[in-house]
Amino acid sequence: MLVLITYDVSTDTAAGRKRLHKVAKTCVNWGQRVQNSVFECKVDAAQYAQLKDLLSQIIDLEKDSIRFYNLGDRYHRRIEHMGIRSGYDVEGVLMV
Amino acid sequence: MLVLITYDVSTDTAAGRKRLHKVAKTCVNWGQRVQNSVFECKVDAAQYAQLKDLLSQIIDLEKDSIRFYNLGDRYHRRIEHMGIRSGYDVEGVLMV
Repeated sequence: MLVLITYDVSTDTAAGRKRLHKVAKTCVNWGQRVQNSVFECKVDAAQYAQLKDLLSQIIDLEKDSIRFYNLGDRYHRRIEHMGIRSGYDVEGVLMV
Repeated sequence: MLVLITYDVSTDTAAGRKRLHKVAKTCVNWGQRVQNSVFECKVDAAQYAQLKDLLSQIIDLEKDSIRFYNLGDRYHRRIEHMGIRSGYDVEGVLMV
């Protein structure tokens, strides 16, 4: 299934900037960045649970926000894009 | 249906900052902001087409990026959240 992850991490402090970096680094291990704070991750149920657990240990629940949108398996027709692309296709070769 | 809109608008120039403001203002008319550049909009097919048309006239296709994720009608079980909330429920009263 494809899971969309969007996040807002407070970067007022050095600790916040560190959290932002760790969230992005974690998401990159599981999927592709499509926009600044938006990742698309192809995962199964077990991986999804593990990813949520990892991210829950990184963010500050009082300051940051992460949202998960499960787009299921037949996600292609659910997604549309306008403008510049981040240069990748979640299943294809990274277009550089 | 619920449509998720995520965007990255280049703010290097005053024109970019103006586009960012217009994109957010347009999305606010159609839905709720859940994160900085993330909106959830409850729309029907005709409204969705109109919203995409409006946004396509605002952004610079060479510099900005907007993504649309159609979560369908049964979207509640598709969405999970961690951390601070932006203070609203897409169908309920705005929690302020």
